[in-house]
Amino acid sequence: MFEDIIPSKINGTRDFFGKELEKRNYLIKTITDVYKRYGFEELKTPVFEDIKLLRNVYGDEGNKLMYKILRSGLEEKDVKGITDSDDILHNLVDKCLRYDLTLPLIRYVCNNFNNIIFPFKRYQVQPVFRADRPQKGRFREFYQCDIDIIGSDSLLCEVELLQIVVDVFKELNIKNYKIKLNNRGLLNDIANLCGLKDDFTKFYILVDKIDKIGLDKFFEEIKNLNIKDDKFNVLESIYKNNYNLKYLEDIFRNNNVNFDNLNNLKDVYNLLKSFNFNLEDIDIDFTLARGLGYYTGSIFEVIIEDVKIGSVVGGGRYNYFADKLDNDNLIGIGLSFGVDRLLVALDELDIFPNEINKKKKLLVLNANNNIFNVELINKLRREYIVDYYYNADDDIKKQMKFANRKGYDYVLVNNNIKDMSTGNVSSL
Amino acid sequence: MFEDIIPSKINGTRDFFGKELEKRNYLIKTITDVYKRYGFEELKTPVFEDIKLLRNVYGDEGNKLMYKILRSGLEEKDVKGITDSDDILHNLVDKCLRYDLTLPLIRYVCNNFNNIIFPFKRYQVQPVFRADRPQKGRFREFYQCDIDIIGSDSLLCEVELLQIVVDVFKELNIKNYKIKLNNRGLLNDIANLCGLKDDFTKFYILVDKIDKIGLDKFFEEIKNLNIKDDKFNVLESIYKNNYNLKYLEDIFRNNNVNFDNLNNLKDVYNLLKSFNFNLEDIDIDFTLARGLGYYTGSIFEVIIEDVKIGSVVGGGRYNYFADKLDNDNLIGIGLSFGVDRLLVALDELDIFPNEINKKKKLLVLNANNNIFNVELINKLRREYIVDYYYNADDDIKKQMKFANRKGYDYVLVNNNIKDMSTGNVSSL
Repeated sequence: MFEDIIPSKINGTRDFFGKELEKRNYLIKTITDVYKRYGFEELKTPVFEDIKLLRNVYGDEGNKLMYKILRSGLEEKDVKGITDSDDILHNLVDKCLRYDLTLPLIRYVCNNFNNIIFPFKRYQVQPVFRADRPQKGRFREFYQCDIDIIGSDSLLCEVELLQIVVDVFKELNIKNYKIKLNNRGLLNDIANLCGLKDDFTKFYILVDKIDKIGLDKFFEEIKNLNIKDDKFNVLESIYKNNYNLKYLEDIFRNNNVNFDNLNNLKDVYNLLKSFNFNLEDIDIDFTLARGLGYYTGSIFEVIIEDVKIGSVVGGGRYNYFADKLDNDNLIGIGLSFGVDRLLVALDELDIFPNEINKKKKLLVLNANNNIFNVELINKLRREYIVDYYYNADDDIKKQMKFANRKGYDYVLVNNNIKDMSTGNVSSL
Repeated sequence: MFEDIIPSKINGTRDFFGKELEKRNYLIKTITDVYKRYGFEELKTPVFEDIKLLRNVYGDEGNKLMYKILRSGLEEKDVKGITDSDDILHNLVDKCLRYDLTLPLIRYVCNNFNNIIFPFKRYQVQPVFRADRPQKGRFREFYQCDIDIIGSDSLLCEVELLQIVVDVFKELNIKNYKIKLNNRGLLNDIANLCGLKDDFTKFYILVDKIDKIGLDKFFEEIKNLNIKDDKFNVLESIYKNNYNLKYLEDIFRNNNVNFDNLNNLKDVYNLLKSFNFNLEDIDIDFTLARGLGYYTGSIFEVIIEDVKIGSVVGGGRYNYFADKLDNDNLIGIGLSFGVDRLLVALDELDIFPNEINKKKKLLVLNANNNIFNVELINKLRREYIVDYYYNADDDIKKQMKFANRKGYDYVLVNNNIKDMSTGNVSSL
């Protein structure tokens, strides 16, 4: 029936089983329960989408990393005409696997535009797929856990998303964390002010690297760009006074920079204050640069201070819809919890609840030629997870050995229940 | 950013959102809660598997219907050599999407053989994918909801799976259903007895069709096979006395047929009796024929009598492992709930709980220039699903209109809560 060898799972993918999966489920349930409390409703989209939707959205890199599905009913003649990779992308394949949860959301919103009452709040937890080189902590199939609000530019959206972060962290018992806030437009303003308009992408990428390379190396690399000395000094002073919105404000005022983006960031911060956020947990951070290709306003991420795994939450405002649907009201804002990293963090902090699955396990021994007290067992099943010992031919010693090896909390023989840890037997 | 047109979702796939998804989640949670109570632990496997695992397992039909994923980094030269569909299957693609949950289970068991304590009980709820022609009730992505026990031939496994069926149906409040029982070997015995050994596959397929074509048409088709008149009469009498194990027993005795398979079916039935099953819900049914390619012993399915949608549960014993791992102990038995059909049934029977999501929805109006009573709102969030009205510029009339249109149960203005159905206002 099988070929010669049972293959392993595909490199970069994972099986999840038992306790490990219970931890994931606990984490995802904790997050989504908070999502629901804030009025987000669940969306599930198909595993694959029309390749026309995703092709060219994520650039060359994305086109390479997308898993492409062969067109059904492909014949010899279809294949023979293929001459280059562009042909493959356009003729051999017609679908690709979910690459993120954002494009399916946009597709859903467009397809159901007339039935949706905006603002539209949805959450979505599904795996996404990237044909990346697998490495420690990077997988080809991994779960995203997103919320998005489509159709409002109110800063209450920012507040709501960050309230959710605070609530989730409280539920998870994570105490030391920092919410980093920035504004994508503000980074444009800084770049323009320093004469880096034409080098904006390079600037943005360098900013994004600061937490890895440090400020000194950052300044060094910036000097390699086409930047004048006086402008460099301005930039240096801004980043040496990172976290200091007041300082940036003075510089902007002195240089007649438009205050819109700066005020937007300030408004978010002040609104968080009026919503009783603990401001010690919040940093305005000009080194925060995320999603060059798509974020347009607020950007934020969250790090856990005691765990060195990078950000565990990220998000921001985007405007996918404006040019396509000619509808500026359909601005979006979204946030994603990094499930894999959070699991590592919860493990490192050792803050998983002691018993995610609180039910004790009971094994019904097969000691009486298959005469079971069915009513009693059914009653016990309300309180315990109940397994039968299947093989009536095995003697009690063998059955008890199995119960020990598999870690049952109790065994049942006739109407007697034995506590495996204390050895106590009680009659039911 | 997008191509010219936002495409629709792929034909034969579905988006699930909001209430509709809550119903699915309720159904799946009800089923899996029972699974857990019986000691089954959850497994999740990757969305794709090595094509070497699935290729040829499901025959030509399967090879056609499997979604195949293009090998990463495919180049011109790889494509140029392709001459036929076999080449496509062997050279262009290296992975395919989950086709069912059984092969991934077998792959998992083989990969983790030394760490598993048998018998191994797992449940799995994930979508599977088939490039079938979409039609009413048949989808290209659909969810399976399986349990399997690997490593025991004890008839207690049969009992356990069917206890789960009874418990799930009780939880779902489904009352009129029939569990149909048969034995794959018994169908072999009947075929052999009637001289249809060489025509077994045709016989099996015809038996499988009886519920669609009726007995008369079945007999007609059987006559077209290579069957002698006296043998035909035996077959006719067996199927005219369907459900009657005693009658079959007499025929077997008179014809010196081995009783092993018949006794196995009888033992299952008697064991169910001793486990206090309601025998009116159980039919021994010689017309039940499932999974020609893989079932080896007990087979069963469940129909809901008031709903005409075919079986909603199916399963049986199989022996995938015997030839491959040379391990006869690794006999398996499994069962699957048909999520899509059960959803239709619950809708038709109108037995969904009134409020799957019991939480009421509350909208916080934005009436006070963004001065919200944060403590109060956070307190309300424990009881209600809470949304903010985002746009402070809209007047209260517009905000109330929105609350009506979107179906909020309550609105909050300052410290006053208004019940939208009664109009009552109370101060908090």
